[in-house]
Amino acid sequence: MTAPPVLDLTADAVTLTRQLVDIESVSQNEQEIADAVEAALRALPHLTVDRRGHTVVARTGLGRPSRVVIAGHLDTVPINANLPGRLDETTGILHGLGTCDMKGGDAVILRLAATVPEPVHDVTFVLYEAEEIDSKFNGLRLLSESDPELLAADFAVLMEPSNAVVEAGCQGTLRVDVRTRGERAHSARAWRGVNAIHAATDVLQRLQAYDARKPVIDGLEYHEGLNAVGISGGVAGNVIPDECVVTVNYRFAPDRSEEEALAFVTEFFAPYDITLTDSAPGALPGLDRPAAKAFIEAVGGADGTVNPKFGWTDVARFSVLGVPAVNFGPGDPMLAHKQEEHVPVAQIESCERELRAWLRGEEA
Amino acid sequence: MTAPPVLDLTADAVTLTRQLVDIESVSQNEQEIADAVEAALRALPHLTVDRRGHTVVARTGLGRPSRVVIAGHLDTVPINANLPGRLDETTGILHGLGTCDMKGGDAVILRLAATVPEPVHDVTFVLYEAEEIDSKFNGLRLLSESDPELLAADFAVLMEPSNAVVEAGCQGTLRVDVRTRGERAHSARAWRGVNAIHAATDVLQRLQAYDARKPVIDGLEYHEGLNAVGISGGVAGNVIPDECVVTVNYRFAPDRSEEEALAFVTEFFAPYDITLTDSAPGALPGLDRPAAKAFIEAVGGADGTVNPKFGWTDVARFSVLGVPAVNFGPGDPMLAHKQEEHVPVAQIESCERELRAWLRGEEA
Repeated sequence: MTAPPVLDLTADAVTLTRQLVDIESVSQNEQEIADAVEAALRALPHLTVDRRGHTVVARTGLGRPSRVVIAGHLDTVPINANLPGRLDETTGILHGLGTCDMKGGDAVILRLAATVPEPVHDVTFVLYEAEEIDSKFNGLRLLSESDPELLAADFAVLMEPSNAVVEAGCQGTLRVDVRTRGERAHSARAWRGVNAIHAATDVLQRLQAYDARKPVIDGLEYHEGLNAVGISGGVAGNVIPDECVVTVNYRFAPDRSEEEALAFVTEFFAPYDITLTDSAPGALPGLDRPAAKAFIEAVGGADGTVNPKFGWTDVARFSVLGVPAVNFGPGDPMLAHKQEEHVPVAQIESCERELRAWLRGEEA
Repeated sequence: MTAPPVLDLTADAVTLTRQLVDIESVSQNEQEIADAVEAALRALPHLTVDRRGHTVVARTGLGRPSRVVIAGHLDTVPINANLPGRLDETTGILHGLGTCDMKGGDAVILRLAATVPEPVHDVTFVLYEAEEIDSKFNGLRLLSESDPELLAADFAVLMEPSNAVVEAGCQGTLRVDVRTRGERAHSARAWRGVNAIHAATDVLQRLQAYDARKPVIDGLEYHEGLNAVGISGGVAGNVIPDECVVTVNYRFAPDRSEEEALAFVTEFFAPYDITLTDSAPGALPGLDRPAAKAFIEAVGGADGTVNPKFGWTDVARFSVLGVPAVNFGPGDPMLAHKQEEHVPVAQIESCERELRAWLRGEEA
């Protein structure tokens, strides 16, 4: 085994982001980056470091009355001719795999760990593996099951890209297959059968007529969605098909549980046969909690902007543990997973500045 | 090379059907059966025999004022644990691959060739290859292109299964892909995209509202059909899809040309983008032609039944050559291509009896 690359936590966050980007860490290949992160954090005497798989946890133990988690994942989606990273000095934009999702956020975490030895809240830094693949591998999920006490906190910040604006809570998501049935026949004598694709007209009509619920929770307006994301049917070019399957994705606001969401979808499509294939809960913004309020005042304070999170993120895992959590990180979430992903250097810098001020108890 | 099996044309048609069934002849494996058929026909001194590929043509040359074609294909769909053939003596039903589609008909053809040396019409017997696969291999089509004079006739009988009842003409068939477009977006922010599957609602609604045309031609009521036989759409479980394709099969009565049929479908789905993927013309029943009238009087005479043919068959190839043609053969067309295909012995016998009477100029 070769020694891991040495991360320089005294460098600025942009330099550190580039260093992290250039350590390839596609999901399930996080050993090298996790070794480098672990070594860098173990060198900081004010932190206690634990490792589970390729997930690294570093904590202060100052006996503060409150504790916060700041977390980010170390893995990326697969390489797509977008490594190594490249800084465009003219535009101040850093290009490359993981710049946006989410090594800019990881660099901020490492900089905060190194430069705020005496925060006003105790802090648990979590850098975890396998967020981009099947949730059974997800490092944060595994940690919440094996060592929930390591995630105990009053508040959590997940540094997923959010354009350096606080995004609170997240919507849940579930998928169902809605099935229509018919009866096969030769298409030359169609009247002897029942066309299951034609029968799906009613399913699509209901989807078209769907009126999105937009509940306001803690002052944030969520926006649900009910969409066909797939459809398939057909036996052969000369056969009236006896089955058609419409795959529907329901994105639901966090005031609904998974059970309530499924009940809604079941009733919406009744009496069709529906099969649940996938489900994940939303997360309430929890902005009424004192720790969250304090964070918003410190960080959202600049222009007071707090947005609802429409997409599903790991904040829902904190929510399940009873820890209010927000997304707050550099980079445009719409660029995540794209070949051309990039991050404005200014967003990395502003996130670092605002979080440092918050941890030091200063005005941002 | 081993010698082909010897067909006994002095045996009854049922025994001969069983012999043919037991010579495996899945499409593109017709050499053995074609060799056997060719050898049996060459042994008949009143016939002139030609061979093209695995298609065998045998003609009388009596100088009669009219000529008729009697045709059948030698190939079958793939074996499905349904060989060898099996005669149920109790029910009088012959079971096995090709019994229905269409070696019962082929046996009748061979029996007529052997037992009616002086028909009142000159006769061209055609036993051809590759009807069950892509039409580019179809022996009748190849013959109509390479040697159209071998198919010249006043009337043709295609011995496809028709329950031993005359089925006249055939409906045409075409397939189009009807495409709806949208705009991709993450399904967590569906309102930023346009859902192409939802847009297909209108296409399906039109299909559901379709009122089948049932034109009466030469006294026969045809029955058109316009059906979705396939549908597909979807990019990923979290993406609003930007395309949906509905595959539609139009079965059109033979008073419409392929061009008219396509024009109808194009207008029916306007302004959607449609792509023609497959097309074959119908065949007019042509029951007003003298040769057809005489046939119907002789053969349809028993109970006077003549039905329209809804499915597409090779009669359309005769129609293109200007030869009126009908389907008339033993076996239920609904059993063709089924694992359990079978044929009532009585239908083989009645077809043989009626056709022999016709060729001899007798009352059936």
